[in-house]
Amino acid sequence: MPGYHPYSEAEAIELARSFPDVFSPEAELSCREIGDGNLNLVFHITEPATGKGLIIKQALPYVKVFGESWPLSIDRARIEGEALRIQHALAPELVPQVFLTDHEQAITVMEDLSDHVILRKGLMDRTVYPRFAGDISTFLAQTLFFTSDLGMSQQEKKLRQQAFVNVELCQITEDLIFDEPYREHERNNYEDAIADEAAALRADGALLTEIALLREKFLTRGEALLHGDLHTGSIFALPESTKVIDPEFAFYGPMGFDIGAVIANLLLNYAGQEHWSADDASRKDYREFLLETVRGTWTQFSAKFRTLWDEHGQDPVFSNAPGYQDLYLDRLLQDTIGFAGAKMVRRVVGFAHVADLDAIPDDAVRERAKRLALSIGKELIRQNRSFRSIEQAIDIALTAAAR
Amino acid sequence: MPGYHPYSEAEAIELARSFPDVFSPEAELSCREIGDGNLNLVFHITEPATGKGLIIKQALPYVKVFGESWPLSIDRARIEGEALRIQHALAPELVPQVFLTDHEQAITVMEDLSDHVILRKGLMDRTVYPRFAGDISTFLAQTLFFTSDLGMSQQEKKLRQQAFVNVELCQITEDLIFDEPYREHERNNYEDAIADEAAALRADGALLTEIALLREKFLTRGEALLHGDLHTGSIFALPESTKVIDPEFAFYGPMGFDIGAVIANLLLNYAGQEHWSADDASRKDYREFLLETVRGTWTQFSAKFRTLWDEHGQDPVFSNAPGYQDLYLDRLLQDTIGFAGAKMVRRVVGFAHVADLDAIPDDAVRERAKRLALSIGKELIRQNRSFRSIEQAIDIALTAAAR
Repeated sequence: MPGYHPYSEAEAIELARSFPDVFSPEAELSCREIGDGNLNLVFHITEPATGKGLIIKQALPYVKVFGESWPLSIDRARIEGEALRIQHALAPELVPQVFLTDHEQAITVMEDLSDHVILRKGLMDRTVYPRFAGDISTFLAQTLFFTSDLGMSQQEKKLRQQAFVNVELCQITEDLIFDEPYREHERNNYEDAIADEAAALRADGALLTEIALLREKFLTRGEALLHGDLHTGSIFALPESTKVIDPEFAFYGPMGFDIGAVIANLLLNYAGQEHWSADDASRKDYREFLLETVRGTWTQFSAKFRTLWDEHGQDPVFSNAPGYQDLYLDRLLQDTIGFAGAKMVRRVVGFAHVADLDAIPDDAVRERAKRLALSIGKELIRQNRSFRSIEQAIDIALTAAAR
Repeated sequence: MPGYHPYSEAEAIELARSFPDVFSPEAELSCREIGDGNLNLVFHITEPATGKGLIIKQALPYVKVFGESWPLSIDRARIEGEALRIQHALAPELVPQVFLTDHEQAITVMEDLSDHVILRKGLMDRTVYPRFAGDISTFLAQTLFFTSDLGMSQQEKKLRQQAFVNVELCQITEDLIFDEPYREHERNNYEDAIADEAAALRADGALLTEIALLREKFLTRGEALLHGDLHTGSIFALPESTKVIDPEFAFYGPMGFDIGAVIANLLLNYAGQEHWSADDASRKDYREFLLETVRGTWTQFSAKFRTLWDEHGQDPVFSNAPGYQDLYLDRLLQDTIGFAGAKMVRRVVGFAHVADLDAIPDDAVRERAKRLALSIGKELIRQNRSFRSIEQAIDIALTAAAR
């Protein structure tokens, strides 16, 4: 990393001044580092007089987890910056605009979205996002279709796949999602109260076989440029706006992994709604909103994806084969469901958790919510290859919650 | 291509002299250019006094086909040289040794195999190769297993996949095998006598759908480092020896594509045996040898692949999932059969043909052989996703030939 150094707040302000479209030359700027400090520096530069702002994100050459520092290539900043540019071009309203990428300094300068709320927090506060299913299905359809062999030059796609080889961050996914939760591992992290569930996972042969099939898909299927980490912590939202951020896990993988991430995190929040008392009418309402959003994410995605295929399909073989589009979408739903289930399970017994469940203060309720999340997740995994309709996922969630 | 120039025979001899392990310093060397002149220069350097020799292969920056020259990157020489090294390390008896690769000059210097015969020619001469099924199944099991996520570091595999992105040569396959034969295209090449068959292909919806599924697999599944062009013209053979050459189409793709190429070319020769009269007892014997070789290629491959997996599996998730290995091999057989069928069809109606069929002098017999090849190929494609055993392929071939 010749020349690389972590920026100070003063350096971040100096860099911000080089964007005259945002800040006037004599602007009084203030800077706050708002990253979690584990992976990246995130400088939020604002001009209090005008309310204008910029985000400067810089990758750190290590990741702090598990009490220690691991080296992690700052090349992920190049991947994130390039993925943001591609995704912004394909879904301009749904991805922050990038103003500058500096690969040597591992810096991305982008649009300030600090008026938005992290979707996970919004869902935990039971905010209703009427636009979300529509927006995220547009993001998914646009970014997955137009980076795949269906929607772009198949020669350029190979070069793009080559540029987005993302060894280290894929390994994190391979380990944390498709391996460790299903065996004894020091990084696994679950409460004693559900140790029986963790042990049952390790002994569930049918489940292990489905996980092996999903791991294989993750390792081998270069279908489209994925976001790669599309949970509700990677989405900024307002009731009237959705912005997808942080694609540092981007790589060419199976489309269902991104769609499944969205559905998994909606259902994790659904499980976390145990937190509210069962006779609270709005618990029922909010769960209905969540399931409606699961349904809408898939049905709107698949409708938009089919329309893009019909209108912009690049490959006559794929466009002219009778029934091929139906087979493709059926298989994609099955992948989506399998990946959604795997992403739910790992958030309960694996290394990295979600606040939707972990922040529930009452021990018994939290345990119930986690068992519910596991129950839904396992059922999605078990049934994934026989899915024919998203309604089966709705039924699984309703049935599990009614127990 | 700074510094690149096509070598003269004198330059080839001079380069050959730099291998003192092969030629003594004062050796009298002779040189013959034996390439077909379309894609590569191939210099065969020999020392008549000792019988020793060397092959110097140099890629040309164009390909001569269809009466014109197309530019074609000499980077394919790097890919071929690196693939040969990897394959030689994994199957030393079955791949020529590489002595030098020079990426700037697009040159690979390798072991002289001129005592061997191109397998296609050997099969056309009805030579029996008792070792072939054993040898090719070893080559396939070793090279496919140890370059896949099952048999090597999954991180190094990603970097290797990146190094073997092979845009131009993959496009040749995508066009000639998975596209043009199924529509009207100026490069298609079939005799008037079978124009009805070519027209029927274009109207066969079920077949077009299977071809779309196979094309998708070819475009997206990075399972292992394939040879990429494993027909019987890429294999040098003697009854007691097998050598796989010319992996310039190497890339990370679906394993079944290589296995299917072998089976397709055995079955193309099987169809070409129409050439010999039906009451010729050795026609029946030779077809039995060919079908036994088809059977042995798959059964020995799958047994060897399973043994490698059991003994050298790198991934505990794949090794511990009950029944996953069976599912994997079932699916791999289906891919193999589908790709075999596609490779047969294109050799009859597409751009590039095989001498096993085209060299049959009698018009009526040649037509019958081509119809037989098409009949077997189409049936393999149609049934590929329901295959459970290689015996189904044997039955298809026997039934078609008995008609």
